[in-house]
Amino acid sequence: MSVSNIGNNEKLIGVPGSRYQLNTPALILDLDLLEQNILKMADNCHHRNINLRPVAKIHKSIEIAKLQIKAGALGVCCATLTEAEIMAKNSIPGILLFTSVVTTSKIDRLVEANKQTKNLMVAVDDFSNVEALGAAACKAGKQLDLLIDFEIGGNRTGLNDEEMVVNLAKTISRTNGLTYKGIQGYNGATQRIPKFDKRKTAQKLSTKPLSNLIKRLTKEKLKPIIVTGGGTGTVDIDSEQGIFTESQAGSYVFMDVNYKDIPLNTTDPFPFKPSLYVQTTVVSNSKKGFVITDAGIKEFAREQFAPEISYGAPMDATYELVGDDLGRINLPRGTQNLPLGSKVECIPPHCYATLNLYNVFHCVQGDKLVDIWSIDSRKNY
Amino acid sequence: MSVSNIGNNEKLIGVPGSRYQLNTPALILDLDLLEQNILKMADNCHHRNINLRPVAKIHKSIEIAKLQIKAGALGVCCATLTEAEIMAKNSIPGILLFTSVVTTSKIDRLVEANKQTKNLMVAVDDFSNVEALGAAACKAGKQLDLLIDFEIGGNRTGLNDEEMVVNLAKTISRTNGLTYKGIQGYNGATQRIPKFDKRKTAQKLSTKPLSNLIKRLTKEKLKPIIVTGGGTGTVDIDSEQGIFTESQAGSYVFMDVNYKDIPLNTTDPFPFKPSLYVQTTVVSNSKKGFVITDAGIKEFAREQFAPEISYGAPMDATYELVGDDLGRINLPRGTQNLPLGSKVECIPPHCYATLNLYNVFHCVQGDKLVDIWSIDSRKNY
Repeated sequence: MSVSNIGNNEKLIGVPGSRYQLNTPALILDLDLLEQNILKMADNCHHRNINLRPVAKIHKSIEIAKLQIKAGALGVCCATLTEAEIMAKNSIPGILLFTSVVTTSKIDRLVEANKQTKNLMVAVDDFSNVEALGAAACKAGKQLDLLIDFEIGGNRTGLNDEEMVVNLAKTISRTNGLTYKGIQGYNGATQRIPKFDKRKTAQKLSTKPLSNLIKRLTKEKLKPIIVTGGGTGTVDIDSEQGIFTESQAGSYVFMDVNYKDIPLNTTDPFPFKPSLYVQTTVVSNSKKGFVITDAGIKEFAREQFAPEISYGAPMDATYELVGDDLGRINLPRGTQNLPLGSKVECIPPHCYATLNLYNVFHCVQGDKLVDIWSIDSRKNY
Repeated sequence: MSVSNIGNNEKLIGVPGSRYQLNTPALILDLDLLEQNILKMADNCHHRNINLRPVAKIHKSIEIAKLQIKAGALGVCCATLTEAEIMAKNSIPGILLFTSVVTTSKIDRLVEANKQTKNLMVAVDDFSNVEALGAAACKAGKQLDLLIDFEIGGNRTGLNDEEMVVNLAKTISRTNGLTYKGIQGYNGATQRIPKFDKRKTAQKLSTKPLSNLIKRLTKEKLKPIIVTGGGTGTVDIDSEQGIFTESQAGSYVFMDVNYKDIPLNTTDPFPFKPSLYVQTTVVSNSKKGFVITDAGIKEFAREQFAPEISYGAPMDATYELVGDDLGRINLPRGTQNLPLGSKVECIPPHCYATLNLYNVFHCVQGDKLVDIWSIDSRKNY
């Protein structure tokens, strides 16, 4: 716990039953379930012979990054330079920044962060960017590791031309200050296809050009040491295929409504359990059939799915976001109203977008608040 | 400027042209347009003979609350206790917390905040809550002002029964520690009806029960001193009707894609201009027809509408949120790609949900960064 802006719940740490006495809205993290998820994924990857470098944008937490690394992860993937800087400053090794850094002031920040940690890598998809990174790395006096971003679906970043990737790899290899490390191929669109077989087929189709690229690079004596991509939804599929050397899986630490009912393989389809919740309080029960809570769009982030109630309301009650800071629990016909002040916990629709709205995790074991952890790298400036 | 976590742009303050040299994603606030909007609304309300107590959840900024009050606002409306506490601590008077405070620990915090400021008010819709607030106010030794929350649409908080409101008003009037101040009637659903006439009809229909309630309360010698509700979309309609003594309008300070094309009256339909922007950088242009930027779902909040590009891309280019931290600018056929590192600014779909994702406003005048303001009360704990 090293948080300057911790809120009003600190005095409840260690108090029996304190989980349900929090000032809300509050983000709850079940430490036992978190730990089970982290150990299970580490064990799974170990047995399936694929490395794990989990996406830290999912949790934005130095404490959780440390737990992942302790369990065997190579490091963490970061989505933004700010995330990477915060991880670097807190001695997290093996940081992969999976988007390009292109402006002068950010490139300066990147090579500074590189000096603070071991094995920082950044993705590139542009020749002029490689030149700028090389010059900055030389000036900073520390070699910078690069991965080439290869488009395998999603129409976002990355080159989609094999020839250009080969040329870019050659350029990196002969640029002072830079080390060519390998390839990134990520397709978010395949991760949450509900049926396992369909997801497997889609991911295989999506990674075919990547597989061809690797053969070609190998022939050109540019065999990638690292091939990274995939997520929680395809880690088992990816390990079977043998294309990726490592996975960027991340959502497995928390799970969410988006992910929790998606079978991840055929033998043990649901290995991970939701460990992240939003706790909310009933603030109005003046009418029949529903009550109003203090958690809305600002506390859950608007998504395709609704939050799923996990505690405090009858079965079949549903949760709706009805205001910036207001939720509505629609009660099944014939049930009693919930008392004013009563607590309801929900699984968020999307773990990442939700936790980004909070300052801290309220860490619980059973019904006790046991610690408060900062969400270290959540901030946009 | 009093921000502990200010980001990487402080050294650009005062530098000519610095607006377009920021580390991005960055939230931009055009101070001249902000001031024009604030003065225009104050002037409008003054001439239309309706008081203004703007919603501070829209901006979450002490600096902006001060500008509003300087221009004539009675105070600010707050959506959460945390917002109200931060405003109270910073000497903002006339705070109306428009949702109920129901748990013991929050009621304790509320009566503390009440001691720190002048004329704090809170909404109620429950008899037991009135009792608890009275006891706490007596214990704290300072009278607490209450408004009764009356449901006029939206199916959220508030009583919808005239009889119960009358009884609750009587109860408040005879409870030690409490002062009955009046009624709140807010219907968010009418605020952004696109056509002015339809909006007017809908708001009139929606406020009919409120009008009846006020007549009844007046007859019972419980005439409300304050009747509050409405927003930017209905302030002119509400002032004509003469039901509300004051408006909760808030979005007018920034405007956004949701609001900017909605005519607000028949003589000067678009009095307010967008003053809030997200600045983003092109981080990948490796493919034809689109470029990728560093601002996605985390930088804009997912909404019904897309961000609207205001600077840096060709006319007819469109902005899509394609990742947690990635946006895509779809370029019109035949246009050049945008250079890597170039800056694009967008009007956010929804000002409130977007600024909630940032720590600071980058305040600009023309193309110069002139100050950095904290977004003081954005935080969930």
